[in-house]
Order: sequence, then structure tokens, then C-alpha cells
Amino acid sequence: MAASVTPPRGMRDFLPAEKARREHALGVIRGVYAAHGFDEIETPVMEDSHRLHAGLGGDNEKLAFAVMKRGLTADDLAGAAASGDALSLADLGLRYDLTVPLARFYATHRAALPPVFRAIQIAPVWRAERPQKGRYRQFVQCDIDIIGEAGPLAELELLTATAATLDALGLAGCVIRINDRRILSAILASWGVPEELRERALITIDKLDKIGTAGVAAELREHGIVGSGASVPDVAAELEALMAADWHLLDGVVAPPAWLDQAAYADLLALRAALPGAAIEFDPTLVRGMGYYTGTIFEIAHPDLGYSLGGGGRYDHMIGRFLGQEVPACGFSIGFERIVDLLEMRDGARPRAVVLVYDADVAPATLLGLKHELVASGARVRFERRVKNLRALLDRVTADGFDVFANVTADTTDASSLAFRELGN
Amino acid sequence: MAASVTPPRGMRDFLPAEKARREHALGVIRGVYAAHGFDEIETPVMEDSHRLHAGLGGDNEKLAFAVMKRGLTADDLAGAAASGDALSLADLGLRYDLTVPLARFYATHRAALPPVFRAIQIAPVWRAERPQKGRYRQFVQCDIDIIGEAGPLAELELLTATAATLDALGLAGCVIRINDRRILSAILASWGVPEELRERALITIDKLDKIGTAGVAAELREHGIVGSGASVPDVAAELEALMAADWHLLDGVVAPPAWLDQAAYADLLALRAALPGAAIEFDPTLVRGMGYYTGTIFEIAHPDLGYSLGGGGRYDHMIGRFLGQEVPACGFSIGFERIVDLLEMRDGARPRAVVLVYDADVAPATLLGLKHELVASGARVRFERRVKNLRALLDRVTADGFDVFANVTADTTDASSLAFRELGN
Repeated sequence: MAASVTPPRGMRDFLPAEKARREHALGVIRGVYAAHGFDEIETPVMEDSHRLHAGLGGDNEKLAFAVMKRGLTADDLAGAAASGDALSLADLGLRYDLTVPLARFYATHRAALPPVFRAIQIAPVWRAERPQKGRYRQFVQCDIDIIGEAGPLAELELLTATAATLDALGLAGCVIRINDRRILSAILASWGVPEELRERALITIDKLDKIGTAGVAAELREHGIVGSGASVPDVAAELEALMAADWHLLDGVVAPPAWLDQAAYADLLALRAALPGAAIEFDPTLVRGMGYYTGTIFEIAHPDLGYSLGGGGRYDHMIGRFLGQEVPACGFSIGFERIVDLLEMRDGARPRAVVLVYDADVAPATLLGLKHELVASGARVRFERRVKNLRALLDRVTADGFDVFANVTADTTDASSLAFRELGN
Repeated sequence: MAASVTPPRGMRDFLPAEKARREHALGVIRGVYAAHGFDEIETPVMEDSHRLHAGLGGDNEKLAFAVMKRGLTADDLAGAAASGDALSLADLGLRYDLTVPLARFYATHRAALPPVFRAIQIAPVWRAERPQKGRYRQFVQCDIDIIGEAGPLAELELLTATAATLDALGLAGCVIRINDRRILSAILASWGVPEELRERALITIDKLDKIGTAGVAAELREHGIVGSGASVPDVAAELEALMAADWHLLDGVVAPPAWLDQAAYADLLALRAALPGAAIEFDPTLVRGMGYYTGTIFEIAHPDLGYSLGGGGRYDHMIGRFLGQEVPACGFSIGFERIVDLLEMRDGARPRAVVLVYDADVAPATLLGLKHELVASGARVRFERRVKNLRALLDRVTADGFDVFANVTADTTDASSLAFRELGN
């Protein structure tokens, strides 16, 4: 029976060592973001159901956990049965991202916030996805967003703060891939894709990693997004060329490529020029999934990893959906669950961890006195009752990260009478 | 329209200043508990619905937010309509406390935990209560629990860690009221209350603050918990005497009072003796709401406040409900939401907060270079675009907690050329 007691499907418990690693990483992220002038906020885990289902969450809306209304009557249940609409029984839902809550928060509190508001949100989100390796139903997102800044300073602040955070976490070798949604639009226009099919086309291009250039070209044809015949471009070949494009795209070029939105590309060049030390790659095929992006988009890549470590972009029309007034916005999200697995816990300034192994006849007051002394001296203290197999006990506390131990007997008076011995750490 | 955009009913957003205050307090609490040998863990916010409704949550079970099953069919809805059982549509629920999840966590992971496990849980819980001043539908609990220690060392470690935390938070003058459920049982036995009515009787006694001794006596009679007539004790008078009881209860007394469980009282005296410096009051009328307590119970009182700041007790039979094997346990919970309102934010070692007021013609790269230099020197940096009403801008950033500002013009080259001026803080 005991074996069947588990957390809910797709959700995780964190034991002490893992929890400490996570809190350590979150502390680093918080600290760097705060130093870079961002301010942490918090919203409730739930939002009103109609806000979560307002079309801003893309496919994630379908993955939202719905929270039932309290005090549902027989009539309510009969109504839902008649309409077949289960969601009519829910008034709230768990957030599936931090962007919809941020837009709601900004609409609620705009008067109390600075004209350019730099937000940190570090918090769990929930998605009822089919659980699989590395994909959870509860996971933490670390977002920074700048609301109210239309110019490139927003992108630059986000990029520098994110790069500084990856650095502080000890994640060397990360590269930021960058693109602009306007460039993607120009590419699609050059292929003759009508406006109304472009969002759909982007979903296909976003699969480039998985299905390759030929696969994307085939899917675009199958869905009737690009036509076929002599007048139609060789999409696969063009995608290959796009993937090879870099910052030297226009070097020595007389006529820029037909697909290039030159204003957007100039903006990207300016971003890069303002960040001379940063590893930033231009990738005109970079899509980022969400429909709300309007300009710059970015993604963190690591040469050793087949997945991105985070990303973001400019979404100038989204805040307006709740506020009733357009406000420019740009955000960057770190994929915390992926990053935390890459980190070695560096224990730098952590307190010395002391185990006191006590005999059964030691007075509790003695133990408390010792703990008081040791804690006051800056140590972390755990009591362990002496057991026959002392070796096993010491192995266990060593694994738990403790540094030294001392025996406490009925004769022990104060910490100065303890003989500390190093554990294996 | 914008005015109606709010967080869900009874739930709160935290703006930067309040969020910083909360994180600061949580950091202090985490630090002290960790030094005292407790280990932080985390569980998902949801638990399986049947675990939340297993009878361990008392009245809180009724307040649980239920999470709907995904992919409900028309048949599911019709079934619920036929049975009138809305909960049949939910497979998960949001936790209403941290004790049920801890019991589940311990049952899941016991093999990986030390024989005496000292847990920290700092996390939100949810209750669909009628919102009112100081009562929220999402709020943070800070719990420490010791599982696997039957002796008084558990109570002593919890009491010293909690007292040290209150101290570190700067909350002077707190008193810990203490009692033992066995003493309450003995009192009820002395009034002739049968075993099966004692839980109900405790609910009434728990209202002593609100309805007074006469009110409690009347309610106990009305509910048929104590009889009426000549043979029945004067409950109101006895409650008055109980409220006056202190540690001197048995001084010079030949025959101990009939209602006193002497073993339990001796245990309380021993706890007090082991904590000579602590402000601990004996209160035989202290109940603590939850039905699962089996021994010692405690509550934090503050002389200036009409409500408790936290509490806890021993619950030796609860862990066994999920584990299938009895394990002693004892816990102490701090009422975080109440405490955080009492705190002055002490900013001790926080970084110097710098505002850079920049002209529109300053190159972004210059701003980023300045930020880089200042952040590297340990400062926190915010950019503010120069506006006509500089006074209003400076007032705003002063209110946001910034310390100094400097003007950045097109001539500025590096941080050494900035003239910093103090803000009002």
C-alpha cells in the first residue's frame, strides 16, 4: 500500500538536497536580476478562467487546469451535462504561464508602477501535458519583462541581465539566437503566403529542428500554405540558405535579398553593436512559438544541448488586451527546470554543518545549550541519536552535506568540550 | 473597463515593495530554521483529491479548491448531474495546509529520509473562505515538523527554533502558550463528557476568546455535552480557574486537582525547565483547532495582538494514515501573513540602489556600460528616462527605495564621470 503513495501524476516532490540546489539557483537569478534594476512581483497562482482563455495563451490554454466553482448546485451540474461544457463549472484556473498574469497585473496596478516597469516573476506554472522525461505538470518559470519601453533599450537590458545571470550560474558557452518577427513576415511574403496563413506557416517553420528543411517545405505545400508549380520558390533550398545566414548577410551585397525586412535587420545589427562582448547569433528561421510576438525574438542555445534554455521577445499588443490601451512590452524567460539540472551546487559561503551524535542519557537541556552555542557561532546543527551502526549514520549525514560531527555524552558541558571530526565532504 | 481587472476574489498581488518585504522575512525564517538543523522540502501545490478529503484536514477539507479532471465527457457530466456529486468531476485539489502533504511526502520518501526527519515547508496554501480583513484565499504557511522523534527533544527543538526565528525577525515580546491534549481530555472526563463528545466539546472550548466562560458553559449545555443539575460542575467557574492556572499550579498543593493529567503536566514542566530563558505560559484551556493533535500543543501570543501568530503540537497518529505504520510527529507553524505585517523592513546589507536619469540622446551602449560597471561594484541600477518633472521622478524612485541618482548625458563616458546625489532615503 505504502508504495502507491505518490505525488499527483507529472508533479514532483523535492527532497532536501534538490530543494537546496533549486533555492540556491533561484537566489542567484533573483540577485542578478535585482541588481540589473528589475523588481520582483507576485500574483496568485489562479486567474479568472475567462482571462486564461482569452486567446493569449496559444495552445497552452488547452492545457490549463480548471478550478471548480464552489457550491455547485444540481442545476449547475445538469446545465453542464446538457451543454456538454465542462468549463462552465469552472470560474478559476491555474496559470499556464507568467505572461497572462503579468498583463493582468499591469492592467490592475498601472497607476502604482513606474512608466517603464521592469518586472521579475519567479514562480510555478501548471500545464496538463502528457508527462514525459523532462516535462512536468508543475514547473518553475523565471521571467523578466520590461513594460512601457518601445525602444531597443528594453531588448538590451533583457539580454544583458539574462547573459549576466547565465554567467553567475556558471553556465559557460551559451549563445543567444536572435531574430525579428518582421523578418519572418517578409520571408513568408516573398513566398506568396497570404497574411491570414502566416501564423500557421510559422508553426510549421518552428518544426525545422525536428523535420528538417524538406519536411517543412512538404508540410507547407500539404497545408496549401505555399503553392506548387514553376512560379513557386524552392522553399527547402531557401530555408537552407536562411539557416546559413549570419551577421555578414549584407557584406559586399549590392541588392539585399528580397525576403529581408531591412528595418528589422538594421535594428538587430544595432542590438548586436551595443553588446560587443555577447555571443549573439542571427537566425532568420528562429520562430518562438507564441502568437503574440511582434518584433525581436530570442532564444538561449547551448552547444552541448539539443533544446533551448529559454527565450523571449517583444509583444507590443498584448498588454493592451486587458488594459484597453496599447503599451509596448518585451520579455525574457529562463527555462529554470532545464537549467537547474545543469548546475553543480557551489557551496561558497554556506555555513559549516555540524552533526551532534548524542547518547540516550544526555539531558535535552544540554543538547539545546550546545545547539544555541554552535548556531550563534554561525554553524548549522543537526542532532542524531547514537545508533549501533555509527558508520552508516556518518555515511548518511555525509551524503546530506554535513561537514563535521562530534559525540555528546552525559559528561559534555559546553561546545568547547566537543571534539569535532571531519566527515567525508 | 480597466478598473474591473482584479486578481481573483480573496487573492492578492504583491507589488515590488511588499514582495521584497515578504522575501526578506522568508529569507530570515529559512536561515534560522536551516541553522537549527531543519531541511527544506517542497511538494506540488496539488494533491490527489481523495487524500485531501481523508478526514485529516478537519473543517479545512470543505474549503479546498477542487481541480477538474481533464477531458471530461458528456457521460461524466451526466453522471455528476445524476448523483449531484460535483466532487466526482475532480481528481485533484489545491492543498489547504502543509500537514497533509507532509504526511503524504513522508509516506512516499521515507526510505530516503533520516530516521528523525526535520522538515521545513514554506509555501502557499488555499482555502475558499469568505474573504475578510486579514483572511485570504491564498496565503503562505511556514511549517517546521519533526517526524520520528517520540521524546520531548522534538518539542524542544521546535520551540527553540521558533523562538530564535521570532527573535531574528525582531518580534520582541512574544509568549508561547502551551498545553497538552491529555490535560484537556482529563478536564472533560472530570465533567463527565463521554469520549465520543470530547472532540465536539473542544470546538466549543476553543471559542473561549470570543464567547467567554459563560458562553462556553452555555453552549456545552445546549449541545448536551455536559448535563445540567446538581451533580454537574459549574463549568463557567472551572473555566475561570483554568484560565488563571500557571506553572505554580501544584506549589504547596497536597492533592492535585481532579482534572489534572499529572503525567502530561510533568512533561510540560520538564519542557519549561529545559528552556529556562523562554517566555512560556501554561494554559490548560488552550485547544488549537485540529482534531489530529495527540499531546503537547502550543501557540504564539503577542501581548499587543488579539490573535495568535502561529502554533502547533504533537500529532502522533497522523503520519500513519498514509504510511500504514505509526510514526511520532510534532510540528510548529508560523502565521506568516500576520507576522509580515508586523515587520519593519530592515535593510541591513542590501546593495546601494542607484538611479541613472538619462537624456534621450544617450547611446544605449553607454547606458549598458555604466550599468555593467555599477553592478560589478555591487550596486543595484535602474534606468529612468529624463522627464520634465524631475522632482516627481525623484520622489517616485525615492519611494521605491533607491538611495542615489546621477544624470547621464551624451557626454558621459564611464561611471567615474557621474555625479551621484543622495535621494531622500
